[in-house]
Amino acid sequence: MIYSLSKFTSIKSVTNSSLLVINRTSQVLLFSRLKSAFPADNNNSTMKSGTTQQLGLLRKYMKDLHHVPEPLAAYLVPSCDAHNSEYLAAVDARREYISGFTGSAGSAVITPKQALMWTDGRYYLQAQKEMDSNWVLMKDGLATTPKQIDWLVKNLEPGSVIGIDPLLVSSANWKAWSEQLETVGSRLHALDQNLVDLVWREDKQNPQPARPENPVFPLEYCFTGKSWQSKVEEVRKELKENNCKALILCALDDVAWLLNIRGSDIDFNPVFFSYCAVTLKEVVLFISPKQVSDNLKDFLSSVDMEESVQIKDYDDIKRYITALGKEPGKVWFPKTASHGLVSLIPQAQCVSKLSPVTVMKAIKNDVEMKGFENSHIRDAAALIQYFAWLQKNIPSGQVTEISGADVLESFRKEQEHFMGLSFPSISGVGPNGAIIHYRPEADTDRTITTEEMYLIDSGAQYKDGTTDVTRTLHFGVPTDYEKECFTRVLKGMIQLGMSVFPDKCLGVRLDTLARMHLWNVGLDYGHGTGHGVGAFLNVHEGPSGISFRHNPNDPGVQEGMIFSDEPGYYEAGKFGIRIETLVKVVPAETKFNTGTKMLTFEAITLVPIQQKLIDPTLMTRVEIDWLNSYHQTCRDKVAPLLKAAGKQSALEWLYKETQPIG
Amino acid sequence: MIYSLSKFTSIKSVTNSSLLVINRTSQVLLFSRLKSAFPADNNNSTMKSGTTQQLGLLRKYMKDLHHVPEPLAAYLVPSCDAHNSEYLAAVDARREYISGFTGSAGSAVITPKQALMWTDGRYYLQAQKEMDSNWVLMKDGLATTPKQIDWLVKNLEPGSVIGIDPLLVSSANWKAWSEQLETVGSRLHALDQNLVDLVWREDKQNPQPARPENPVFPLEYCFTGKSWQSKVEEVRKELKENNCKALILCALDDVAWLLNIRGSDIDFNPVFFSYCAVTLKEVVLFISPKQVSDNLKDFLSSVDMEESVQIKDYDDIKRYITALGKEPGKVWFPKTASHGLVSLIPQAQCVSKLSPVTVMKAIKNDVEMKGFENSHIRDAAALIQYFAWLQKNIPSGQVTEISGADVLESFRKEQEHFMGLSFPSISGVGPNGAIIHYRPEADTDRTITTEEMYLIDSGAQYKDGTTDVTRTLHFGVPTDYEKECFTRVLKGMIQLGMSVFPDKCLGVRLDTLARMHLWNVGLDYGHGTGHGVGAFLNVHEGPSGISFRHNPNDPGVQEGMIFSDEPGYYEAGKFGIRIETLVKVVPAETKFNTGTKMLTFEAITLVPIQQKLIDPTLMTRVEIDWLNSYHQTCRDKVAPLLKAAGKQSALEWLYKETQPIG
Repeated sequence: MIYSLSKFTSIKSVTNSSLLVINRTSQVLLFSRLKSAFPADNNNSTMKSGTTQQLGLLRKYMKDLHHVPEPLAAYLVPSCDAHNSEYLAAVDARREYISGFTGSAGSAVITPKQALMWTDGRYYLQAQKEMDSNWVLMKDGLATTPKQIDWLVKNLEPGSVIGIDPLLVSSANWKAWSEQLETVGSRLHALDQNLVDLVWREDKQNPQPARPENPVFPLEYCFTGKSWQSKVEEVRKELKENNCKALILCALDDVAWLLNIRGSDIDFNPVFFSYCAVTLKEVVLFISPKQVSDNLKDFLSSVDMEESVQIKDYDDIKRYITALGKEPGKVWFPKTASHGLVSLIPQAQCVSKLSPVTVMKAIKNDVEMKGFENSHIRDAAALIQYFAWLQKNIPSGQVTEISGADVLESFRKEQEHFMGLSFPSISGVGPNGAIIHYRPEADTDRTITTEEMYLIDSGAQYKDGTTDVTRTLHFGVPTDYEKECFTRVLKGMIQLGMSVFPDKCLGVRLDTLARMHLWNVGLDYGHGTGHGVGAFLNVHEGPSGISFRHNPNDPGVQEGMIFSDEPGYYEAGKFGIRIETLVKVVPAETKFNTGTKMLTFEAITLVPIQQKLIDPTLMTRVEIDWLNSYHQTCRDKVAPLLKAAGKQSALEWLYKETQPIG
Repeated sequence: MIYSLSKFTSIKSVTNSSLLVINRTSQVLLFSRLKSAFPADNNNSTMKSGTTQQLGLLRKYMKDLHHVPEPLAAYLVPSCDAHNSEYLAAVDARREYISGFTGSAGSAVITPKQALMWTDGRYYLQAQKEMDSNWVLMKDGLATTPKQIDWLVKNLEPGSVIGIDPLLVSSANWKAWSEQLETVGSRLHALDQNLVDLVWREDKQNPQPARPENPVFPLEYCFTGKSWQSKVEEVRKELKENNCKALILCALDDVAWLLNIRGSDIDFNPVFFSYCAVTLKEVVLFISPKQVSDNLKDFLSSVDMEESVQIKDYDDIKRYITALGKEPGKVWFPKTASHGLVSLIPQAQCVSKLSPVTVMKAIKNDVEMKGFENSHIRDAAALIQYFAWLQKNIPSGQVTEISGADVLESFRKEQEHFMGLSFPSISGVGPNGAIIHYRPEADTDRTITTEEMYLIDSGAQYKDGTTDVTRTLHFGVPTDYEKECFTRVLKGMIQLGMSVFPDKCLGVRLDTLARMHLWNVGLDYGHGTGHGVGAFLNVHEGPSGISFRHNPNDPGVQEGMIFSDEPGYYEAGKFGIRIETLVKVVPAETKFNTGTKMLTFEAITLVPIQQKLIDPTLMTRVEIDWLNSYHQTCRDKVAPLLKAAGKQSALEWLYKETQPIG
């Protein structure tokens, strides 16, 4: 699935309805988007009507704050949580609550007289529709719209105090904004309490949901391949090399990976609300005590009791960091750590640097990699069953984007180690396929026919791996133009997939390979080409990526990393094409060897590319050979599973679509 | 020529010997590297022996400064001039003077007890050889070597004062360093006088050269295509859009381009020491009065006297900026402007942003482009004459890297509008070709034979354009391996040269196209692929470029820009291959049109690629067609000139090397 915050628009309010079912095979189903399980649609769960009362109350708080010497000239409400998560739990959807605007990207400024919402071009219409007359839309990205910070500098009285929850702003942004405000004598003020929370808690009609405290469970060694103790030792090595005494982990997937435990506090991401501190002597997990079972406690203790993870309350993190600052020694904060945490200790003691766990986590060990490969065989079986099912059922005229996606989910649920979906399926027919961040809703749901192309971008969480795959199909007769566009997207996927490049090559250097065959005929696509994928963790995982955007955190593409390879082409109002295959990074065998380690990719996703959409005359011999070999691998690896399960029509579909071409 | 500061290692001390000859055709020959004209080799012109006395004197100044309350704990000597020039005039080679180290990259710290030189891996050996025992080499780039600023933070007493010439540090660096020093209570102190200059001026054996004040002359409209008045109007439009009252130009080529005048104060770059201020009402040129002739004064006045450029003394820039800061309104400083200038006015009034002239200058107008094309026909004629001459004369065993390059220069000198070389020729045989920044000197000069490959990277300044071309040739029988390497370098040049890409595509996204065919067999090269080129200006011109490095100033590749396309492959101790062709950016005609403006390149350099080094079996039909078409263009455009000049053997060489292949 394409990496962009925008796609998670409407997932924030379903957290509390996350399905937690222990079935007969002990599978815990964490995340689902089966409509039957989620009667409450997101659009209905947030208030669309007036925000007058809420704003009134918020402004009252802005005026009468005990610890602030003067009334706030503005209060800032960003769209993030304290862990810089890509998806938000409902409790953290503060900007959405106070404004009514449900888009994923947006940042609000509330002054005693005005309420302004900055959001980008994807959301102008939606924001205008959702916000009431209290709100002014600031169209971010237009040359005529000042940036939020510039607006604050220009429009507030010099010497103003601007309030913000310091847990919701990175220390780098705090610093940059403060410097700009300083030029007019204004300043940011870190408030101990989030003012939106104060308002929300008093809202009897629509009270703030509680922070999720779902069970947290250990992930077995057969899935992680490395004990948490070994991982902690690796972190300590980094600490010593960087002359630091402690590392504070803030990202939820960093904590989950380090300690080999998982949860379900945020939809589709098997994580739990927590922080973790690793020092040279101790490991402390900050988490709600309700989430810590005896089983988990045992898991977090060493057999020889030499080292156990200490458990402290989630809110104790601040006290802990403050104490660290009282003794000499540097503390390593990940770049995304909030000002609320970093500011607790003297600046000279802070090291702000990419979390070392982020890089370790991105490089999969052999067990994780084997798990990825195994889970992808099962995932491919489910998808192939779905495509065979579609082929049979589309003529009935009864299959829609939503009902189709539900059938696909049911096939995935049958697979071993299935834990839920890894993101809400993007199931789009014809023009809906051209909406890059589309997700079918009742009012847009379109029937899958033999007349239009169908794009399905979906994935699942398995205990041994996370999947994310897109295929575009036509169940009737595609036009020559559709075939040319499809074939050029495919050429891009292959060009990148078979590329050879030096070790630690930056992702931005590879992105063009996936586009060049589209560019040659004047086409392009408006999203990045590849993102990292977690091992039964977030489907979008940093720090590397393959995109045209500059990524200052990119450590370069390295052996053992996993990426999506997903070029596309979209024609607004007509059709969308995307072909997405996960690939692993492996050493390349090259004709010459000059001492530079060279790498290449190997496909992990094992779902055939529909042949009817391919125009072989546009492909080179090398590309055709790659495709035939890929299809042979799909057949070799997935057919045995389908056979064993007696899935005859899926097997037939697989054989048909993996015939060699050219 | 590859863009890298490193290549200008040894050009700094020849400024005063710049040749200024007015010949019969009124050609002004500005820059030459004909050995006969430059008996003083760089290695001999700077002191290699002891620096004890100089350091002693410098330390005396560090102790007894009138305006500094306490002695300096350290004095910093960077390797730049006040204009952030790529090449330095001899007067600015302060780091070289004080240390004896002549490399292009290096930064010195002098404390009362120590003298330390930071330089990178290219210069470890050279620095060790050139510096005396007063100096400690700090091997920059090694994990064990602290960065200079970290060293200052750790090794000086807390609360130290560190002196520096504020004209030799950008305001961004000043700010970043100050912040780091602040953590230990230390600070930078801007000294009014450069302490190395004070020492150097007293050095009777080796006095500091005077700042060059060579004549400055107007460049005719038939070469510039746009009056300085129109350019000033464009700058004023930018000023208004950015809400600024003034722009301070610091880069010497920015000033030269804006006012359509040229000079010869820095070798190979037709620029002159100056600043320029553009406000909404006036244009002020800060320059030595000695360089301003009546002719120039006339040129800088409008016929209708509505607007004339005001001339002030070079040193008046500080007073002028200070006065600007006394009135309200923002002043635009280019990003590279020094702290010495930016700090003269209140921070709130400073806008630090890429100079608008830098982008305007990079986009050539029709007249400049036509001039480029014309000058490249003449330049190709000279190079083709040289190759024909080489073919005839190499068997004699008398042609060396230096004597060959001199012959090439003599052929260029015969061409209309020739003004000098655009950089010192890189003329390398066999293993010398593998040294990327090689420049032949007496002790390395190698004979060109039929046994080894020969790489010649050279260029010239013509009044109508600047050239830069590299060809690699073999005058005997190349091995299959040499042919494969050469062919893959060529495939890269063609792949980039014929690429189609969206308007304003970042250069970093295109670099890989030139490498992919090398990567496929495990090969690569360690330099960027393309740089911008000035119009009778600096051969390396920003702000765009095609490189694997992140370029924060890249405005994207745009129609009318000119780039080098120069992949290579180098095998240390054996051979070097580089093929460099200048290309212009033009609109692409594509099969489909989706509204996105697409661009492509068109070759300007017209020098054939030696066919004997090409293995056509490694090339695709499309590549062969490109090459044949390119060669046909070379023949069509250059043959008439060679015919008219009666250059028969050159003409024969051209015909032979432009036969279609495949």
